[in-house]
Order: sequence, then structure tokens, then C-alpha cells
Amino acid sequence: MEIAIRDIKGHAGEVVTVKGWLYNRRKSGKVQFLLIRDGTLPIQAVAFLPDLDPASRDALKGLTKESSLEVTGLVNLDERAPGGAEIQVREVRLVHLADPYPIAAKEHGPDFLMDNRHLWIRSLRQSALLTVRAEVIRAAEEFLHEAGYIRFDAPILTPAACEGTTSLFEAHYLYDQKAYLSQSGQLYAEAGAMALKKVYTLGPTFRAEKSKTRRHLTEFWMLEPEIAFAGLDHITRLAEELVSHVVQAVLKRRPTELKTLERETASLEGIAPPFPKITYSDAIEILQKRGSSIAFGQDLGGEDETLLSSQFERPVIVTHYPAEIKAFYMKRDPENPGLAQCLDMLAPEGYGEIIGGSVREDDYGTLSERIEEHQLPRESFEWYLDLRRYGSVPHAGFGMGIERVVAWIAGVKHVRETIPFPRLIHRIYP
Amino acid sequence: MEIAIRDIKGHAGEVVTVKGWLYNRRKSGKVQFLLIRDGTLPIQAVAFLPDLDPASRDALKGLTKESSLEVTGLVNLDERAPGGAEIQVREVRLVHLADPYPIAAKEHGPDFLMDNRHLWIRSLRQSALLTVRAEVIRAAEEFLHEAGYIRFDAPILTPAACEGTTSLFEAHYLYDQKAYLSQSGQLYAEAGAMALKKVYTLGPTFRAEKSKTRRHLTEFWMLEPEIAFAGLDHITRLAEELVSHVVQAVLKRRPTELKTLERETASLEGIAPPFPKITYSDAIEILQKRGSSIAFGQDLGGEDETLLSSQFERPVIVTHYPAEIKAFYMKRDPENPGLAQCLDMLAPEGYGEIIGGSVREDDYGTLSERIEEHQLPRESFEWYLDLRRYGSVPHAGFGMGIERVVAWIAGVKHVRETIPFPRLIHRIYP
Repeated sequence: MEIAIRDIKGHAGEVVTVKGWLYNRRKSGKVQFLLIRDGTLPIQAVAFLPDLDPASRDALKGLTKESSLEVTGLVNLDERAPGGAEIQVREVRLVHLADPYPIAAKEHGPDFLMDNRHLWIRSLRQSALLTVRAEVIRAAEEFLHEAGYIRFDAPILTPAACEGTTSLFEAHYLYDQKAYLSQSGQLYAEAGAMALKKVYTLGPTFRAEKSKTRRHLTEFWMLEPEIAFAGLDHITRLAEELVSHVVQAVLKRRPTELKTLERETASLEGIAPPFPKITYSDAIEILQKRGSSIAFGQDLGGEDETLLSSQFERPVIVTHYPAEIKAFYMKRDPENPGLAQCLDMLAPEGYGEIIGGSVREDDYGTLSERIEEHQLPRESFEWYLDLRRYGSVPHAGFGMGIERVVAWIAGVKHVRETIPFPRLIHRIYP
Repeated sequence: MEIAIRDIKGHAGEVVTVKGWLYNRRKSGKVQFLLIRDGTLPIQAVAFLPDLDPASRDALKGLTKESSLEVTGLVNLDERAPGGAEIQVREVRLVHLADPYPIAAKEHGPDFLMDNRHLWIRSLRQSALLTVRAEVIRAAEEFLHEAGYIRFDAPILTPAACEGTTSLFEAHYLYDQKAYLSQSGQLYAEAGAMALKKVYTLGPTFRAEKSKTRRHLTEFWMLEPEIAFAGLDHITRLAEELVSHVVQAVLKRRPTELKTLERETASLEGIAPPFPKITYSDAIEILQKRGSSIAFGQDLGGEDETLLSSQFERPVIVTHYPAEIKAFYMKRDPENPGLAQCLDMLAPEGYGEIIGGSVREDDYGTLSERIEEHQLPRESFEWYLDLRRYGSVPHAGFGMGIERVVAWIAGVKHVRETIPFPRLIHRIYP
């Protein structure tokens, strides 16, 4: 019977067939220890050569790393083995003999690995990372569905920018029209919230920024909930509950992958609401005390974020930034119009901003002025202004950067490993 | 207590507050019947003017369609009311008085409605449609998760085309590089399947086709499962089970929305595996008998699809098309090399192709030849060929077009209504 390695423990004492790839091999006299991966988990298959038929022994000869094969054998439970079981091989069938595999156990530079990303993802570490990514998205959507949110897909090809016209990728549309690749689904999600109350967008977003940091990709995925009749308190609570749910779901469902990643999980286990909440003013004060040269009115840089988040064991929520350093659509604080009703969430352990959100300006006249102040092309925003002409309501939302959340939960330094095929300033291949 | 209208039946006899928009109003002497929508469902609120305080009576004066408001009142169960309940109004608070609403009950042309898509989605019919769309995607992912599939996000910005270089949108990348918007996540999903066995991509895809039909969008969403160690039987079974699950989930969870859409559901209730399966040859024979002028070797046009699917009550699966009219990566039938090991699924009731898939060519030499035959830029496909150099395995997958599935299940003629902000050959606004 053919089985997935993930299910092997349920087949103790049975003869099964697994189909996969040779990950590693160790020989000791007449015994060969094959580490087989099938995409669900790796398993050790122990082959005692004298017990095998000639065809199987032939198949084992000259077997290269990543060759594909089918192994049939008896399942023995063994606590010490990875996955808790091993296979006592009875038969081996070669599917395809791999050319000498370019990725070796030795250290390769990041460029080489990125050139071979289509193969690199087969490594147990990269596979575990991408599995954690999938679980993060699944858990986040599951949480939103349970809470009554409706998925609302925003368009990628758009006539204008959400946050200004710099850092936009331009595309040729049909009939010589120009289009831009979306930087955020938010404006569209706002229209969605007026129709469906609680919505979220989930999709790729694009920034043509020449930022070469470990936290930036030019193409990255965002999850953006947007809620009608909601304010800052509402999205603050949603953000901390969402993030906590995601962390706990990954801990529960992907322990093997976190182990493969050598992720220290004690710090994740404590992630639960409420998260610490400070204002931007508090943040500046803390940072200055800790030696940062930041001044009130400046945005937090990557180093400031790291320094600030290192003061807390849970993600920290920073609210009420100066309106001037935030986007045009953010609603001001009625008690202090110099500040925006906004929040950023910074992950612990130096992973930086994972969430940014705000209450949206819902007054037609005020929003109209902001669009002028920011010198945005008004004709592209007429439809957005309409949302304030026809039954405007208080509303708020945020964006969660998938790759940064995955980097934090998986404990990897660079976001480029948290997406199957990262797009970086110098890279669109493979 | 503030509640969502969807939950109102659980609050019979209680005084609740709903926040939403005025959808419609009918006056009869001292009684006003307000139809309020809050994005979850509509509800009728009955206001007896003499019972209201002056502020509430003021709020009701001159109230326009789509004005936002908060209504507090007593919940009465009433079988005849939409949603099974109505509210006996005690207090009305105006949130925002809408300008005269541009979309009236009268018939508008499609251009006008599309220009106002950001408002049109508030109509009960469009909201229901988008809710069905969300449920289709949720149900599809849920099915794949249960079956052990891992989400694997393919890039949008790519160096080359999946199915040839025509009908590609070009984008300006950084440093004067050219990039193209992905037509399909498939090639990347194949790399994913070699790493994670069973994967799927879900995201927007792009075709710069000047097709002005009711089945085409330039930006549309695809769900693309890809499976290592699988053949045509495997994906055929997966396709029919996936589609059946989606249909049954929508019927079960969104009966109110299907009712709003006036969808006749009897034909959907019978959607269950197995689906009828015919070969391309059979299809040509059936079509010719029914009067089509199609000849063997030609691809099925929209009218052929409609004619063919009208012969069946369930979706019909058509396999083994001539390889020449199919994509370069499809594996030929070993018993008849002129045919591809492929499948298309056509929805009933004339909704056309909703799924297209195939076994993939897994032999390096053969694939290499095909790339040359199709005059594809080989350097862009080196990574794809690598998948056949290093442990190649039989594998297969398909793509399901989200908008077409939604159009069929919801019973709407044109796919432009099945996505929040459709992109058509002449439209990228709003």
C-alpha cells in the first residue's frame, strides 16, 4: 500500500510503499541507511543488501542525491528515528536517476541558492519554512472566517497608487493604457466593508523600492482586514487576537517543521492577548533612553524597531504616530489633530513591523483636502471619495505582512526564505 | 446590544442595535418600513412615528437611500420577513446622510454600473454574489487542506510566459529589467510538488487577450493543485471531488445568498462524483451530430462548450485532446502520441470550461524538444527543465477558474459580476 510518510506511524508492522526522493545515504558494510523525503516528512529506510532482490540492489548502485524512487518495506516504530518510525527495505524501484545535484551539504552563497531556488526548496529546512508559511495563511483565514469576515479580492492592476505614485510598478495595459501594480488592497477593501461589513483581502502586493534589507521584497503578500463601524480599539483587539491565533495554530500543527527549523518555541508559547500597547511618544522616549538618536516626528527605522521590540516579550503595539509621517487616508485623533489614529505592531526578537493599520478618514471634505495636500491625482480617487458621499461610516483596518510574520514564527533572519520564489531588487528569476 | 443582522434570530424579544445603511423605505401613514442592510443580511425595521422621540423622527426626515444609521428596537420573529425577523423601532440615529444615490431601482446600462462598481457591490444581489465567491474559495481550500495539500504561492512577476509570449502583460521592473505578469502559477507549482508532494497555488493571473466575451477577464483568479507521483486518473478524481465539495458547501452555507440570486438549486443538489467522462473524439462526434461544424483537430469554441455541456446534467470531463492544440508541457498519451493526457471540465447550463489540466511531460529530452518546437525562450525555462534533471517524477495538476465556477454556482451570465473589481479589455477603473 502506498502511503505518505507523514502517516507512517499508523502503519506499524505493515508493508508499505513510499514514493519520494533520496535525501541522504549512509553505508555501513552490507547495510545502507537511506533518508527518503516525500514532501510530507523524511524517513529512514534501512536496506540490508543480502535480503534484496537483484533489481533492488541494482537500483541502489550509483543512486544520486535527489534521485526519485519507490521504496517498499516493513514499518518499524522507533522512538529515536525522525518521524518516530523507520522502514526495513524489501524492494527499491528507481524512478529517475538524478544528475549530480548542484546543492551539496557544503555552504553555498545566497546568490547560488537563489539561482537554484526551484531546487533549494526541496531541502528539509526550506520545505519546513514553506509549510509554516502555508499554515500561517491558513490559520489567519480560519480565524477571520470564524469571526464572520468575508474574503474580498482586490484588483492588482489599478489606475493609481494607494500611498503616492513613487515606488509603483508600471504595466502596459491594453490599448496603450497605463496601469500600476497594487501596493495594497486597502482602498478597495474599504468599498468592500461598506457592502459586506467585515472583509479581508489576501494577495500579492508590490513596491518598487530599491530597499536592500532583510525585511523587504518587491512582491510580497498582505492580509488586510477592513471593518465598517469600527475604530482603533476594534482593530487593536483584532490584530492581537489574530496574531495570537496564528502563532498558537502553527505551534500546535507544525511542531515537526519548527523542530526542523530549530526554532526555540518557548517565546512563542506565551504569545496571547493582551499585547503591550504604547504610544509613539512613549516609543520615542524609550528609544532615546536606550541610546537611539531618533527625534519626535521621525519614523521608526529598522534599528529602532529592533531596539524597541527587544524591550518586550510579546509583540508591541505602537499607536498615535504623527499624522505627517503617515498615509493620507488616516483619520486624525480628535483630541490631538497632529496625531493619526493608527497602530503598528512590532514582532519580538527584532523582526520589525508585522502589522500597520489605522482608522480611515470618513469625512468627505477632510479626505478631499488630504488628497490635494498629498498631490495625488484626484480623478483616480473619485470613486474612493464616493465612499464618503454615500453613507460614510467610521471604519478601520490593517495590513499584516505574511513574509514578516513567517520569518518571526519560523525564526529566520531574511524574508527571502519565507516565500517560494522571492522577488528582490535584482532578482525575478527563476 | 449591537448585533449583526445575520444573528438576529437568536435575539427574539430583546432590544438590539443594528448599524447599517438604508436600502429601501416604504411609508404608510404614521408607519415607516425601513429595509436596513448591514452587509451580513437585510432586515425590515418598522417605525411607528408617534412612539419615537423627536430626535429619531428628525433622523427619519429626508433620509436618503444608502444613508448610514443606527437603529435600536425590539426583535420580533416573523416567518414572512426576510431573515425571519423584524425590528420594532425605538430609536434611530443618523450616522451620515447620503447624497442622492446614483444607482436607482431603474435599469442602468452595464457601463454605468461598472463605472460605479464601488457602489454597485452594495446591492443585495451583488453582495450575495461576492459572498458566494468568498465561500467558493473557502470551500475549495478547505477541501484541499483536508486532503493534505500545502498552499504554495507562485510569483506574479516572472521572466517568461507559461504558455507562449503572446497575451502577456509586460511590466517595468527595477533597473530597466522587463517582467511579465504571470498567466498561471503552474510551472512554479511543479517545482513545489517536487518539494512538498501535493501543493496548490491560489492567486490572480493575467491574460492580455482582447477577447470580449462574457467568460473572459484580463485579471482572474486561479486555483491550481499540482501533485507529484500522480497521473490523469488522480487529477480527474481530484477535480470531480473538489468541484462537488465546493457546490455542496455553497448550498449548505449560503442558502440565503442563493435565494437572493434567485438561483434554481435543484440542478446543483445533484452535483456529486462521478462526473460523466468522454474523450475529445467522443466530444467531436456528439457536437457534429448536434449540428456543430467543428472538425477533429479544432479546439472547442464557446458555443461548442455550451452545446456539449447541455447534453449532461453534471459537469462533463473531456480528456485526450489533440496534443497540437494544447500547451507544450502536456505529456502525450503513450498509446496514441497525437493525443495529450489532459482533461477539461465543462460546467453544465452553458457555463463553459471551469477546469483545465494535464499530466506534465517529465522526460528531459522530450520537454526540451517541445520548448524548441514552441519557440519558447529556452534560457527562461532552464530552471523548469531542471525539474526533469534531478529526480523527475510523473506529476499532474489542473487550474480551476474561480470566476467561472462562481458564475455557474450563482447562476449569473457574465463573469464580470463574480469578482469585486473586474478588469476588462477597456476597463481598469475603479
